[in-house]
Amino acid sequence: MNSQIAGSVLRQIGPHLFSTAAISRAAATGGTVHSLLAGFAGMRVAPATWVASVRFAGTVPETVDGGEAAEKSGSAADGSTGGKKEKAVVSYWGMAPAKVVKEDGTQWKWSCFKPWDSYTSNQSIDLRKHHVPITWGEKLAFWTVKSLRLPTDIFFQRRYGCRVMMLETVAAVPGMVAGMVLHLRSLRRFEHSGGWIKALLEEAENERMHLMTFMEVTQPRWYERALVFAVQGVFFNAYFLAYILSPKLAHRMVGYLEEEAIHSYTEFLKDIDAGKIENVPAPAIAIDYWRLPPNAMLRDVVMVVRADEAHHRDVNHFASDIHFQGHELRELPAPVGYH
Amino acid sequence: MNSQIAGSVLRQIGPHLFSTAAISRAAATGGTVHSLLAGFAGMRVAPATWVASVRFAGTVPETVDGGEAAEKSGSAADGSTGGKKEKAVVSYWGMAPAKVVKEDGTQWKWSCFKPWDSYTSNQSIDLRKHHVPITWGEKLAFWTVKSLRLPTDIFFQRRYGCRVMMLETVAAVPGMVAGMVLHLRSLRRFEHSGGWIKALLEEAENERMHLMTFMEVTQPRWYERALVFAVQGVFFNAYFLAYILSPKLAHRMVGYLEEEAIHSYTEFLKDIDAGKIENVPAPAIAIDYWRLPPNAMLRDVVMVVRADEAHHRDVNHFASDIHFQGHELRELPAPVGYH
Repeated sequence: MNSQIAGSVLRQIGPHLFSTAAISRAAATGGTVHSLLAGFAGMRVAPATWVASVRFAGTVPETVDGGEAAEKSGSAADGSTGGKKEKAVVSYWGMAPAKVVKEDGTQWKWSCFKPWDSYTSNQSIDLRKHHVPITWGEKLAFWTVKSLRLPTDIFFQRRYGCRVMMLETVAAVPGMVAGMVLHLRSLRRFEHSGGWIKALLEEAENERMHLMTFMEVTQPRWYERALVFAVQGVFFNAYFLAYILSPKLAHRMVGYLEEEAIHSYTEFLKDIDAGKIENVPAPAIAIDYWRLPPNAMLRDVVMVVRADEAHHRDVNHFASDIHFQGHELRELPAPVGYH
Repeated sequence: MNSQIAGSVLRQIGPHLFSTAAISRAAATGGTVHSLLAGFAGMRVAPATWVASVRFAGTVPETVDGGEAAEKSGSAADGSTGGKKEKAVVSYWGMAPAKVVKEDGTQWKWSCFKPWDSYTSNQSIDLRKHHVPITWGEKLAFWTVKSLRLPTDIFFQRRYGCRVMMLETVAAVPGMVAGMVLHLRSLRRFEHSGGWIKALLEEAENERMHLMTFMEVTQPRWYERALVFAVQGVFFNAYFLAYILSPKLAHRMVGYLEEEAIHSYTEFLKDIDAGKIENVPAPAIAIDYWRLPPNAMLRDVVMVVRADEAHHRDVNHFASDIHFQGHELRELPAPVGYH
């Protein structure tokens, strides 16, 4: 796929490249083409370098390909400071990600997440945990979530594949909103975040990965896409407002949403076990993301996703508790990487 | 610091804890107190587990401390499902991060970032790279940024310590806006992100870490805080609108902002070398984040921060180029971890 894109980009810039005086030096050395190719043909990054930053073709003189690319793009750089065509610029800034490999040495084929984002799910988590609503605010949050079940049940019935896919488009919103709000606050107040920005953005990313996974199992129909569009518009703004007014209740509500999600996934499992939903092989992306065995099935995926939701439930109820006790999130270290 | 907080939380919940019938079982087993203490007294996480997810007290039965915490909070859990006071809930959800250690075995003292977020800066990057504005849009972006220099120069003169601190509060906004927009789009369109969401959020976090660093060197005055407040409000919305209308020009503008940032940091270095600004020892947070030697000075910090800005310049000009060539960001793998 990389090489395809490289190819198409080359096809696109090729003619302009060699007909552009401004970057003639680059063309002469073939730097633009080379660095692009070297970039996408890429050099190999050993798994050992996972924790450290990934190196890129344009910035790794010590690597053969990378080095070549660096020199060439260097000369291209000098040439194109007077560049007249934006087409020539690809080769100028085009730092291309190094090829990442899996433990087994095979090439990593996902660009939406990297091997170091993958993890083994902790399924020992208690799925029955529930926070009993006490204050009127909590009761409001609880019954708001409960009342949202009705239209969802009516709309989806027991088409859980589609249902969970749709719900993940909503579930990925609160973490992003909260992370953004805390990020901006940290900047305005010159305050440390306590790691909560990262923890909440991690939640948002994890929920998005759920969506990427279930997309492989079911495809949304046009009216479902329309629904997602409308719901996101409303929910994003509603949650943003809620988080400004009362992060305490906003986190509590997400905690309850996650409790409902756990319920839905449990129902999903029941239907798989009852044979109502076919237990198809797990999507490749899920196997790589949750480090599942190659022969993993849909059931295994639903299990790890449910465990994820349980972890998000804990994080959000915990965050709400911190506020309830009159603290700010940043005062307590965030459960980063809690899954 | 952890134990201080644990202490304060305990002081706060203590009385309620033991006067609450609802959680008598928890109190009886001492679960609430123990799990909280075990949590914050924490168990040790070997550096080997850095790549994998961090385990937490409440979820690590195999660890001694953790296991105790798990049992206790388990029994606390049963008790508090009928809990009446939110005070009791801390012990219920209170998963506390495991103590993380550095390579040398000493305790990791930052909660706003973890050892695996730290990196060694690649300073071989070309600082002189510049994208010559070609289209009217690029010229507009270029001159907008250039014109912003004047008021900044007048306001700060050569107080670079303060100046860069203030500018980092702005520099951390675009990455967050772009990451959020792409995240929501990925959800709406059921599309993969190509890693760009992560790459842009990484940029925002990196800029925020710059702020956390310079905060240690200079403290903002009240009117500077007020200025940050106002500027953020305007800039966030302006950039959000710009990113919706033309991500191409939005990324280009950030590319130019970063070029100016490189210039400012170079001036900063000149003043340090000229003795106009005292070359104080580097803040502890900077030494841990950029893996600097223990005897690093402010000058070393400015060097690595400038290298960071150069990397952000590349990423944003590259992103703009992708749009200029009629592609979407997700079509090309993002330079995640490019620094």
